[in-house]
Amino acid sequence: MNLNEYIELVNKKLDEFMPEDIFPQDIFKAMKYTVTLPGKRLRPVMCMESCRIFGGNVEDAVPTACAIEMLHAQTLIHDDLPCMDNDDFRRGKPTNHKVFGEANAVLAGDALLSFAPQIILKNSKNLGSEKLVKIMEEYTQYAGAYGVIAGQVADIEAEKNWKNNIFGLEPEKLLDFIHTHKTADLFKLPLRTGAIIAGAGEQDLEKITELAQKLGVAFQISDDILDVISTFEEMGKTIGKDQNADKLTYVTLYGLEESKCKLACILDKCCDMINSFNIKSEVLLEIISGIKKRVGINDNHCK
Amino acid sequence: MNLNEYIELVNKKLDEFMPEDIFPQDIFKAMKYTVTLPGKRLRPVMCMESCRIFGGNVEDAVPTACAIEMLHAQTLIHDDLPCMDNDDFRRGKPTNHKVFGEANAVLAGDALLSFAPQIILKNSKNLGSEKLVKIMEEYTQYAGAYGVIAGQVADIEAEKNWKNNIFGLEPEKLLDFIHTHKTADLFKLPLRTGAIIAGAGEQDLEKITELAQKLGVAFQISDDILDVISTFEEMGKTIGKDQNADKLTYVTLYGLEESKCKLACILDKCCDMINSFNIKSEVLLEIISGIKKRVGINDNHCK
Repeated sequence: MNLNEYIELVNKKLDEFMPEDIFPQDIFKAMKYTVTLPGKRLRPVMCMESCRIFGGNVEDAVPTACAIEMLHAQTLIHDDLPCMDNDDFRRGKPTNHKVFGEANAVLAGDALLSFAPQIILKNSKNLGSEKLVKIMEEYTQYAGAYGVIAGQVADIEAEKNWKNNIFGLEPEKLLDFIHTHKTADLFKLPLRTGAIIAGAGEQDLEKITELAQKLGVAFQISDDILDVISTFEEMGKTIGKDQNADKLTYVTLYGLEESKCKLACILDKCCDMINSFNIKSEVLLEIISGIKKRVGINDNHCK
Repeated sequence: MNLNEYIELVNKKLDEFMPEDIFPQDIFKAMKYTVTLPGKRLRPVMCMESCRIFGGNVEDAVPTACAIEMLHAQTLIHDDLPCMDNDDFRRGKPTNHKVFGEANAVLAGDALLSFAPQIILKNSKNLGSEKLVKIMEEYTQYAGAYGVIAGQVADIEAEKNWKNNIFGLEPEKLLDFIHTHKTADLFKLPLRTGAIIAGAGEQDLEKITELAQKLGVAFQISDDILDVISTFEEMGKTIGKDQNADKLTYVTLYGLEESKCKLACILDKCCDMINSFNIKSEVLLEIISGIKKRVGINDNHCK
């Protein structure tokens, strides 16, 4: 499957997996609203592609792939809340709490955190109990306080006073910590679970985790750059907020040009890794090209 | 084990299971704060006792029992938020968001939703993958939009206009729906998982689920009554809020005396059930006596 075919499959299955007509409908509507907003579907695509790379059947990864997109939507719903980033727009539409109210947005996020693994448990019985337990271990690790939430907590703390070495970390280390957890952990989850579904061994899991870490950081740098150089129309959310708030980002720390250089360098390393790991994946290469294109860097940037 | 021994064991294990020294400490501290506030520990006790009733080893149920108390704490943290019930006190102490701020309280609740099942997965490997998958199925069902969150959503909606048959339900039916999910589902989860850990069959699961439903509704009626007749010191939270807000509760719908009668009647049925199911459990009977004592009804109430 190519990138577009993957995305179409994810969109179709997300719609199927998310019911709307169950009482009380309010909560299921709120959950489905954010999950089905148009998005790049990077995480579910990575899950299915990782399964394919390691010799698995892509179909087997579909429920887990969709569950991870639901988890991603959960983080967006709660991140956008007034007590967090207080954002009014996401993917070009009003944020969840703007449409359904704050209480329902909190509850829709909570509900997704249980609904997503439930989708895996209900629809992946053919994988057998042992693999299902492994996937649950991965899911709870990266979704929780050791994973994406650690990044979010540090990010919120950093907004207040990152210049004062909070948590005893220099800003560079703090930024690494935030994006390892806030972004790269949600790349590790799909790439690792896809591999687990395919039956990949420990060594392959280590490799794909390393690649996920790099890809995640690259994606975050591109996001920080786009917050400066892009428009609301392109991003579907309020932009320029990071700079206005003097937030700790790659651009505020290293400046725009150095951030672009860092990004180009990390993406080159990702390509090297894909080659040296002997991973044949047009889709991952297409994702990397896509990131380059969005921020306007070419293959020889900074060389 | 008697009731107090169970409670002591739960408190000891909750303390052990909840780390405080992991970076970033803020989130682990916020999670542990609400989980370890003194409480009746009804749900974990029910889980361990159900395991014992059906011939299992109580030790095997400890991680699941503690995880369910963590889930319960999660519901309390988010219920107390300003956008929900906006409560300042819980179990006699300031609520989570009052101590750690609103953003951290949202994230601490989110984190508990993944941390709790993680505790089961990490500490119950001896149960084997098949039972672990079953426990995950139960956990995600009752924790999510089909379970406790359905109750919470309906409860919030009901606060606004329960007299107008919202959701097309008469107030009596709406009240049933709310408390079946908001309260009884979090009794079903421990009683069912305890039985599953012990290896109970489908028929036993049905029986214990029926008992959980009745016990849960009874507990909710007692809570509604106590909101009227109790004091802040006894309850550890602001009382009288339901009445002031003209909230849909057993007392606002049926009045104080009829609510007490209903409660006495349901608790008698619980005792009948325990006898007819041939369940030998001093602990469950002690829990029932405790509920009667708190609201001041004796064995012959309404007879």
